[in-house]
Amino acid sequence: MKKSIGAREMIFPNPVMIVGTYDKDGAPNAANFAWGGIAASEPMAISVAVRPSRYTFENLNLKKAFTVNLPSPSFTAEADYFGIASGRDVNKFEKTGLTPVSGDFVDAPYIEEFPVNIECAVLHAIDLGSHTLFIGEIKDIKVDEALAADLKGLWHAAQILTYDSFAMSYRLPGEEVAKAFSCGLKFQ
Amino acid sequence: MKKSIGAREMIFPNPVMIVGTYDKDGAPNAANFAWGGIAASEPMAISVAVRPSRYTFENLNLKKAFTVNLPSPSFTAEADYFGIASGRDVNKFEKTGLTPVSGDFVDAPYIEEFPVNIECAVLHAIDLGSHTLFIGEIKDIKVDEALAADLKGLWHAAQILTYDSFAMSYRLPGEEVAKAFSCGLKFQ
Repeated sequence: MKKSIGAREMIFPNPVMIVGTYDKDGAPNAANFAWGGIAASEPMAISVAVRPSRYTFENLNLKKAFTVNLPSPSFTAEADYFGIASGRDVNKFEKTGLTPVSGDFVDAPYIEEFPVNIECAVLHAIDLGSHTLFIGEIKDIKVDEALAADLKGLWHAAQILTYDSFAMSYRLPGEEVAKAFSCGLKFQ
Repeated sequence: MKKSIGAREMIFPNPVMIVGTYDKDGAPNAANFAWGGIAASEPMAISVAVRPSRYTFENLNLKKAFTVNLPSPSFTAEADYFGIASGRDVNKFEKTGLTPVSGDFVDAPYIEEFPVNIECAVLHAIDLGSHTLFIGEIKDIKVDEALAADLKGLWHAAQILTYDSFAMSYRLPGEEVAKAFSCGLKFQ
């Protein structure tokens, strides 16, 4: 039997996207966004939903550039803090001691200590109501050197966090269940 | 040290969204999409990136409605098959023996056996190049009755699958690391 729990903005899993931007004074900012994902292949693109009240919104419109930094468990508290404090009030890199590095391809800072950094150039900003959906073209992905040797094992080796919006918690990636484009062949 | 692995359409985690639609003859279809996520709160909305070559693309444009069905591990092979076969060639519900149920709010079928079903009405279809990003307003979420009693534990209890695009595999949700809006307060 099914039970309706009403309309809610819920899906699982959500990514933990720490979005890096520069502000009008050139100060680096990092903020936590869970809503978005891959949006296209040509151009390679990523979506991030941002409320106009967020400081990141201002920076995205100004610089048309951002990074998406994916945290491993050692940086859970930092990632969470990036979703609590605002770059309007405080320099979150100074507070956490993390290192902002200027992107090679876009005018946005990435977080040196995080295992995966994605550089993006804003292609579209689509007003959906409460949120604007920023579509960024992926210009480059950087990973910790130790992870680059086995890209197939990347997500698991880096233990990239997932956001559970019902429990309001961060989760590790779990065990592999089966291979895609493979386990379903039995129905053909 | 960082190493560039070039531009790729990669993020972690990706959802395993089994999108249910009706075709022009009223036949139910289900197809597997990993690219998308929550897009807004008001209206509550979800994004799904769909190539124009997919049968689902035709159905979405025709019916302006879809469901997102999230699989638990018992249905990994079915979920995978939904990404291998095309509804143009075969009725995938018949092949898998799963049950299509007409949505209460939109003209699209949901999958009775899957633990979470989200009914969506198409609000926007945004051409991004290789993919069109469909933005669906969430009209209702249904869950298995046994899951409804503890919504905070929903994702973990249902063991909703995650797609790992580097390994091309399905993963379970992993352990909880920390609570959001909480573990980061130490930096304030």
